[in-house]
Amino acid sequence: MSQLPKQPTEVSVPTSADVARLAGVSRATVSYVLNNNAAVRISEPTRHRVREAATQLGYVPHAAARSLRAGHSRLVLLPSGHIPSGPLHQYFFQELQAGLRRLDYTVVQYGSAGLADDEAVRAWAELRPVAVVVPPGITLTPHGTDVLTRSGAKAVITLGPEPVAGAHGLVMDQRRVGASAVAHLLARGRRRIGVVMPREPGLTPFSEPRLAGARQTAEPAGARVCPLPLGYEEESAAELAGRWRELELDAVFAYNDEYAMLLMRALQDAGVAIPGDTAVIGADDLLLGRLLRPRLSTVRMELAMDQPLAETIDRLVHHPGSAPVHQDLLRTGAVHRDSS
Amino acid sequence: MSQLPKQPTEVSVPTSADVARLAGVSRATVSYVLNNNAAVRISEPTRHRVREAATQLGYVPHAAARSLRAGHSRLVLLPSGHIPSGPLHQYFFQELQAGLRRLDYTVVQYGSAGLADDEAVRAWAELRPVAVVVPPGITLTPHGTDVLTRSGAKAVITLGPEPVAGAHGLVMDQRRVGASAVAHLLARGRRRIGVVMPREPGLTPFSEPRLAGARQTAEPAGARVCPLPLGYEEESAAELAGRWRELELDAVFAYNDEYAMLLMRALQDAGVAIPGDTAVIGADDLLLGRLLRPRLSTVRMELAMDQPLAETIDRLVHHPGSAPVHQDLLRTGAVHRDSS
Repeated sequence: MSQLPKQPTEVSVPTSADVARLAGVSRATVSYVLNNNAAVRISEPTRHRVREAATQLGYVPHAAARSLRAGHSRLVLLPSGHIPSGPLHQYFFQELQAGLRRLDYTVVQYGSAGLADDEAVRAWAELRPVAVVVPPGITLTPHGTDVLTRSGAKAVITLGPEPVAGAHGLVMDQRRVGASAVAHLLARGRRRIGVVMPREPGLTPFSEPRLAGARQTAEPAGARVCPLPLGYEEESAAELAGRWRELELDAVFAYNDEYAMLLMRALQDAGVAIPGDTAVIGADDLLLGRLLRPRLSTVRMELAMDQPLAETIDRLVHHPGSAPVHQDLLRTGAVHRDSS
Repeated sequence: MSQLPKQPTEVSVPTSADVARLAGVSRATVSYVLNNNAAVRISEPTRHRVREAATQLGYVPHAAARSLRAGHSRLVLLPSGHIPSGPLHQYFFQELQAGLRRLDYTVVQYGSAGLADDEAVRAWAELRPVAVVVPPGITLTPHGTDVLTRSGAKAVITLGPEPVAGAHGLVMDQRRVGASAVAHLLARGRRRIGVVMPREPGLTPFSEPRLAGARQTAEPAGARVCPLPLGYEEESAAELAGRWRELELDAVFAYNDEYAMLLMRALQDAGVAIPGDTAVIGADDLLLGRLLRPRLSTVRMELAMDQPLAETIDRLVHHPGSAPVHQDLLRTGAVHRDSS
């Protein structure tokens, strides 16, 4: 038991006053050194002494107290809980977190799953973030933007498929995904196109605009688009495949690669030839899609940004009155493999 | 432009004093009502008036200020950035967040990717969480536990594969996964077993104990275990499959279903019969694994808890001096399909 640290009840939490006493400096000096305040000139030996004392005592500055003193926070809030698991979004959020940390922001994610829109916004506002980055799948209303702004947020940014009044919009227009998929299928000579609509909750903010993009692209070509509800389970796919011939489709855009893999397997098991009878295309360019036979065609997505999002956020925080930013980040392109 | 809210520079942030004035009550009453303090009796009409005034002004309580006044926070911190994307972990963290919210905690995730262990712990401590739940894949040291405890954390809980001195351990012993996979392969008559070790960073906290569990199970049966480094890309899988016959293996536990799907396809392309020449088993029981032919055998994982983790955390927060909790949450079992 000797290697166990003392139990919490016996621990006295060290304060900046303790650090100041041990280092032989003022509390203000401790604060300047540990908060990396570059505006105040403090000699390197003194800085060293303060850091040593802090380490020895196990003292860590209090982010919330610092925020209250400064009158604003360095907290950037990323509501989470609905972020799709595609590789694009994962990479995007990791880069954003790293970029904001380099600019000395504290980035936290807050799980909003299960909260109504207004409850969620109130919960976010309680944390007094200086900026809020709302991912696609979470509804931000003009009222929500107003609550956040009034509670001190200097930048409210939506990454959703649609812009929101009062918020900056760095949107990812999901219609492009459906448009790229259907343009590819049209180029392959297909005219009767099914579009998979996942039955799973939380995906509507993606599936609806993808369907809209598919329709916008199909109509001028005189092609037909047919929405196909599909649950992410083998039974649902088998049921859809069982009535495939009645649908008289010659192609399907299957929402993403996972649904495409599920449906393609069910179609093959039902005797539908891929791509002979029906062409299949997914989205996300997952490695797993390349393992099937035929290899799955897909829509690849990339983000185009003039500057890193972290720097855009920092600029908005420092110039809160500037004109609304509106930029569509999403670039898409079909990747032709063997299933289409 | 008329529907845009006022620009942030023109907004005056409403305070609890403004709410008190509008509702005709004291600031203390505002605080009691909006913080749901049940210990103070306030009439329903007064509560209603306070809430109406807060809504009208767009006032939201300040979580950090409330924490400072109370002397402790209600913030539960989940460091993130390495949480594996398996369905088990996703579900687990959603349930945990919902459970803690019901108990009136504020749960935030903090991305620690790219921070050294000590930097990460200091960043967590700055947020002054009352509890920290460290997921597998993030290293918590006894020193880190001490820093967190000294900064006010009343419960530090590791979910990692191994317990940590000073922290409560609700661990998920990943050795069970390797043990279940190998026990299944032994029962199918296999004795020369490869174990895939992913080359991708961040997976070692899972792959090493899975290998250890595989070895512990193979040895008493006189079976051989051979670690097989594999990158998550087709080239790496083709390279491994190309020298498969030299390895003289009759089975492989492929870390998880995704690596198993990748390797099984490469083995098939190299002319290795599955399961005739080599049995393959993954882990996670992904739906996609059932789409391959042969259908992928897998290790299914479940969590066993005496009570919801949120309630355990709440108990530890209220009894910080209690004896260290140690519980292994993971239950595993092989699911036999057609690849083994």
